[in-house]
Amino acid sequence: MTQPLALGIDIGGTNTSFGIVNRRGEIVSKGSMSTTGHATTHDYFTAMKQVLTPFIAEFGRENINGIGIGAPNGNFFTGEIVFAPNLPWRGVIPIAKTVSEMFGLKATLTNDANAAAIGEMMYGAAKGMKDFILVTLGTGVGSGFVANGQMIYGNDGFAGELGHVIAVRDGRKCGCGRNGCLEAYASATGIVRTANEWLDERNTDTILRAEIGKITAKLIHEAAEKGDAFALQLFDYTAKILGQTLADMVAITSPEAIIFFGGLAQAGELLLGPVHRYMEENMLNIFQNKVALLQSALPDADAAILGASALAW
Amino acid sequence: MTQPLALGIDIGGTNTSFGIVNRRGEIVSKGSMSTTGHATTHDYFTAMKQVLTPFIAEFGRENINGIGIGAPNGNFFTGEIVFAPNLPWRGVIPIAKTVSEMFGLKATLTNDANAAAIGEMMYGAAKGMKDFILVTLGTGVGSGFVANGQMIYGNDGFAGELGHVIAVRDGRKCGCGRNGCLEAYASATGIVRTANEWLDERNTDTILRAEIGKITAKLIHEAAEKGDAFALQLFDYTAKILGQTLADMVAITSPEAIIFFGGLAQAGELLLGPVHRYMEENMLNIFQNKVALLQSALPDADAAILGASALAW
Repeated sequence: MTQPLALGIDIGGTNTSFGIVNRRGEIVSKGSMSTTGHATTHDYFTAMKQVLTPFIAEFGRENINGIGIGAPNGNFFTGEIVFAPNLPWRGVIPIAKTVSEMFGLKATLTNDANAAAIGEMMYGAAKGMKDFILVTLGTGVGSGFVANGQMIYGNDGFAGELGHVIAVRDGRKCGCGRNGCLEAYASATGIVRTANEWLDERNTDTILRAEIGKITAKLIHEAAEKGDAFALQLFDYTAKILGQTLADMVAITSPEAIIFFGGLAQAGELLLGPVHRYMEENMLNIFQNKVALLQSALPDADAAILGASALAW
Repeated sequence: MTQPLALGIDIGGTNTSFGIVNRRGEIVSKGSMSTTGHATTHDYFTAMKQVLTPFIAEFGRENINGIGIGAPNGNFFTGEIVFAPNLPWRGVIPIAKTVSEMFGLKATLTNDANAAAIGEMMYGAAKGMKDFILVTLGTGVGSGFVANGQMIYGNDGFAGELGHVIAVRDGRKCGCGRNGCLEAYASATGIVRTANEWLDERNTDTILRAEIGKITAKLIHEAAEKGDAFALQLFDYTAKILGQTLADMVAITSPEAIIFFGGLAQAGELLLGPVHRYMEENMLNIFQNKVALLQSALPDADAAILGASALAW
């Protein structure tokens, strides 16, 4: 028999958020602790135990079906976080095993984008869909591909690295060491790189020129909303590269929808409008006018917890 | 209860092959008829009925579990062949329904590359694999993606169009009307196009120069085997484009293996050697040295029938 509650833990680069979630996908209670500031992973786990033990006790461990954990570079098969560039720890962290032993509950790990995809499938924009792609546009670009109603983990648990598909052959350097990855263009950091490059090379008049050195995706978004032509061109360029890459992805998994999540996705139609246009322009005819582009339907602050908790069922 | 035999039908551009297959994947009996030379699809189906009725009767209709059909542009969900450029018929052909009614047996259709993937999974190089990609390198480039042990058909049944992923942005014209598709480079016709272009542009000494106007993939393969530098460069160039594209595909579905099938794949290590090298060179580090490149393990003439028949179980 399954228990009525699940514990979802989302480990981000700065904060670790957690929440008790019921069967209907409602967060009954939540909290957070710092991911950083612990000298070792042992200290981090000690802090987690102190925070989560009373939290779990409040609802009764016997009522909790299990723990779901979302984390960058989290591997579903091994339960390990593996060389996550955006977390304070290096190497391989056996997090599912550690958390499971700490609280005496089954614990399941996956990467943050996969967790978001599962959350959308259970409670969000992908409810009832069997074939869709979840794309996170944040500091990096992540993705979760769902086919036949199942997450594609691949043979090693690392499937769904859309951010590291080569979008521009011999293009700009990516954090992974290769050149031209989608992540180097279509993430929040990617669009800022484009802005800085263009400001360097061009004399275009733009309200962003006053912000040189401290440009963010949010500032570009605000400038575009005010009709700044330079900012709109930045969205158009980013959308073109993303739309072209998505057209190729549709040819592989033919999804019902592509769902966007994360900071840069908050630009909404300003980004997704041109992404949709470029995707259609670049798509094989049999796929045209079939694929919906949607924004995440999960409340932003809660999505990661919901997604992680969904693993526990 | 399932019956002990299945009928597999492979509809190719020239011939329609069929065979009775048992549970162990052995073709008990087989035959073929012409796909072309029929004035209408009605005439084609009439001819098929004449040929297959006694063939089925020989084994007893009651012993046959169903009919599996593989055909270019065959759609698993609708049972229709849809605008297949390499078949003599235009428009939409409801082939599963027609065949099913004609013989009073359940009939299931899929495209030829998916059928080959299912055949490899049941009887060939992918036996026991849950995550792999089957790539057909023939007149065109086809593919079947398998994840979690299931064929990815996508939302509309058309998933797996690897041949129409853009391998070279703004590259050469493809039969689909777009530019730079993988199929325009890494198919048997693609490598011949490259050969003809290079012979036009360059004065390189090659035994292929004597064959201008009648160069085939087979001739290029033979020249390469004799050590012809020009032919080897053709394989290297084709392998580079294929390897780069496959590196991107691995990032999405993280397969255990990629299995190659079809005319150009018969070049074996001459092609797959450099494909493997370019794939590894272009791959995200977490996927390196994990993915096997294999040639189909199905006897060539029978593979299509076996693959199609596998749909009937």
